[in-house]
Amino acid sequence: MHGPSMVDITGKPVSYREAAARGRIRLRAETIKRIREGKIEKGDPIYAARIAGIMAAKSTSSIIPLCHPIPLTNVEVDVRVSGPDTVEVESTVKTRAQTGVEMEALVATAIALLTIWDMTKQYEKDEEGQYPFTAIEDIIVVRKVKAGQR
Amino acid sequence: MHGPSMVDITGKPVSYREAAARGRIRLRAETIKRIREGKIEKGDPIYAARIAGIMAAKSTSSIIPLCHPIPLTNVEVDVRVSGPDTVEVESTVKTRAQTGVEMEALVATAIALLTIWDMTKQYEKDEEGQYPFTAIEDIIVVRKVKAGQR
Amino acid sequence: MHGPSMVDITGKPVSYREAAARGRIRLRAETIKRIREGKIEKGDPIYAARIAGIMAAKSTSSIIPLCHPIPLTNVEVDVRVSGPDTVEVESTVKTRAQTGVEMEALVATAIALLTIWDMTKQYEKDEEGQYPFTAIEDIIVVRKVKAGQR
Amino acid sequence: MHGPSMVDITGKPVSYREAAARGRIRLRAETIKRIREGKIEKGDPIYAARIAGIMAAKSTSSIIPLCHPIPLTNVEVDVRVSGPDTVEVESTVKTRAQTGVEMEALVATAIALLTIWDMTKQYEKDEEGQYPFTAIEDIIVVRKVKAGQR
Amino acid sequence: MHGPSMVDITGKPVSYREAAARGRIRLRAETIKRIREGKIEKGDPIYAARIAGIMAAKSTSSIIPLCHPIPLTNVEVDVRVSGPDTVEVESTVKTRAQTGVEMEALVATAIALLTIWDMTKQYEKDEEGQYPFTAIEDIIVVRKVKAGQR
Amino acid sequence: MHGPSMVDITGKPVSYREAAARGRIRLRAETIKRIREGKIEKGDPIYAARIAGIMAAKSTSSIIPLCHPIPLTNVEVDVRVSGPDTVEVESTVKTRAQTGVEMEALVATAIALLTIWDMTKQYEKDEEGQYPFTAIEDIIVVRKVKAGQR
Repeated sequence: MHGPSMVDITGKPVSYREAAARGRIRLRAETIKRIREGKIEKGDPIYAARIAGIMAAKSTSSIIPLCHPIPLTNVEVDVRVSGPDTVEVESTVKTRAQTGVEMEALVATAIALLTIWDMTKQYEKDEEGQYPFTAIEDIIVVRKVKAGQR
Repeated sequence: MHGPSMVDITGKPVSYREAAARGRIRLRAETIKRIREGKIEKGDPIYAARIAGIMAAKSTSSIIPLCHPIPLTNVEVDVRVSGPDTVEVESTVKTRAQTGVEMEALVATAIALLTIWDMTKQYEKDEEGQYPFTAIEDIIVVRKVKAGQR
Repeated sequence: MHGPSMVDITGKPVSYREAAARGRIRLRAETIKRIREGKIEKGDPIYAARIAGIMAAKSTSSIIPLCHPIPLTNVEVDVRVSGPDTVEVESTVKTRAQTGVEMEALVATAIALLTIWDMTKQYEKDEEGQYPFTAIEDIIVVRKVKAGQR
Repeated sequence: MHGPSMVDITGKPVSYREAAARGRIRLRAETIKRIREGKIEKGDPIYAARIAGIMAAKSTSSIIPLCHPIPLTNVEVDVRVSGPDTVEVESTVKTRAQTGVEMEALVATAIALLTIWDMTKQYEKDEEGQYPFTAIEDIIVVRKVKAGQR
Repeated sequence: MHGPSMVDITGKPVSYREAAARGRIRLRAETIKRIREGKIEKGDPIYAARIAGIMAAKSTSSIIPLCHPIPLTNVEVDVRVSGPDTVEVESTVKTRAQTGVEMEALVATAIALLTIWDMTKQYEKDEEGQYPFTAIEDIIVVRKVKAGQR
Repeated sequence: MHGPSMVDITGKPVSYREAAARGRIRLRAETIKRIREGKIEKGDPIYAARIAGIMAAKSTSSIIPLCHPIPLTNVEVDVRVSGPDTVEVESTVKTRAQTGVEMEALVATAIALLTIWDMTKQYEKDEEGQYPFTAIEDIIVVRKVKAGQR
């Protein structure tokens, strides 16, 4: 087995790149109710997750060992309650670069979901301090776009 | 809704803390075969994921907005092929501190799984550059321990 | 002139430490009105500033060259509209450590104020793209506490 | 209120961009005298502030939540004693990019001023450890330039 | 003496840039034997050094005060046992940018060598915890290339 | 081969720890003369190297994959012209912790030496842009101390 080694993108053309990744976190119904009612003591987890996701997308190349540093032109992290016990995150990343940005979208999504966990953890733990309900599920890439070569 | 605000741990005693988090990534069977045979061009994803997970655990407080900085005394990230189309990650974090380390274990696990994705992505994409199979699933906290107050 | 050199705190006792720093930013009255009415397009600047301030406090030792790394036990960043053209920030940082945390409180305050600037800048610029009104003013340490040596 | 969300600069043209930001710190006259005479024990604060400001400008996008990562082509941080109790900082940042660099200039200026504070704090504190004189004042953008679209 | 100040590269053309840097670390013969036999308890130091070198190259502008941030298109870190008591590292960095990348190649090489040290240190220390044999030697730039201006 | 895995220091006692590391860089005699005469255009390389070394020591655990995060109580980086074509760096790091700090001292030394390189590189390159003279040599640990268990 070779490597580890980055993919050499020196000779690749600059293209418009876009990627979207989605995932969700399962929480207790009463935690979801608290989110809806604005009763999370550490602060609004939706807003915190959006910021954390955006900041994480920008630091992808220092978190994932072989990712190239890319000057992103947009990161959107949409976070919303999507069911009685679920918060869903969908992150979209755009750039003009020599390589795709799906890892940036995935990192944004994963970190936004982990931030939801952190913001709500006092309501998720049982009396022994364990997390019998909480789980992050189905982080996937929903769309990759490459177009408009220069 | 208040905040965002960190939990004030100033008055909490220093205790032994341990947390373990687990998750898995679903890959194509042929990608798993490549991992087993040492034929991943970017390098061994198991090893890269372990390092990325350990490094991420150490930077948790700069990634998750309201996490306290904690001087960790151990981080273990176990990464292994666990089925014909699955790689599983389990991370264990230890410290003596005033607050728990489940977020550190979760961050290590999520980043290790994302590193597996990054290392294998050329085999996971279909001919249109999409990822119809790949998914990160069921990131959970499997154990939290608090003991030995000082 | 010597140095640069850090202060050697090896022999100093661990004490309870607290510091608070305050500052304000002057904005156009119409921008303040937008903040009050929730009409800032980039998102609520109060919330974003609080998160940015907390995260910055935690990274003080990597931003200010000679600051010691300190495991903070609490950071609070209070951000509020304090007049017809002013937003005020007050940050409080706590720890048990061998040195004070006023730099952490100052960094949190400065970065929270700069985040307010960034979130509102489209309303602050004149037609030539200049900022004739916007200014960050009077960043000071309002309180330093040291007590309870161990 | 929307967001938080970055401004989407994907479609904006690359232009020459320049921004300058200025601010000052008020110190005791005797501290200024020490700076002039090279008698600051932690080392020359002027030099340290310049380096800290340059380094901070480069990390703006990881400090300010919604700033885009921009490959800067120049950062200059001018730091000088400008009065009997004042040190003034003026930072100039240049790039060719799709968005302006005033936040980078402001971050450089604020961090340079905070570094002056940190380097001189032993002379600024009174006998109770408080800072009755020290203050950072009037951080403003003095100039923004946009030209030479490509 | 002026400065510190970055070199202003605003007006320089974008060119293809490549740089390679080399260095080596002297270890005990028995440590080298352990590396060859896969008996280093902390894990394969060759692989860890490669990853650490690649990641360090990407963060050069946050480690070396006056380096420009550059979006690298490739980093290769070759690490191999090169003699009975020596491990050699050679790092190659590529980009299309307005300035050279020899500092990135040097940082990658130095950090890869330091990672070898860290991974093997339990075998290098004598019974008093000192390092009578271990040394990093002859870090040099072996090649700088500039071509293909745009 | 196992790992990569950190050494588990959870059960180790907190001790006073000190480590010193030394290294040198060979430069052209005329560059050394420029340093002595204060004629380096990018600024005083001695001062810049000291700051860069101190800052790097503090970020060791994010640069070297398996290093533990340690709250350092002192870092000193001594940089001096030590011969007609040599600059020498010696870094000393102190803490009270469960593990040693030789990696922190080595990182400080290596980064200080690389900063000297960066600050002087315009005088070191030949007419083809190559570095026929410049070399970093003999980075070693000169002293490790462990005492005063708590």
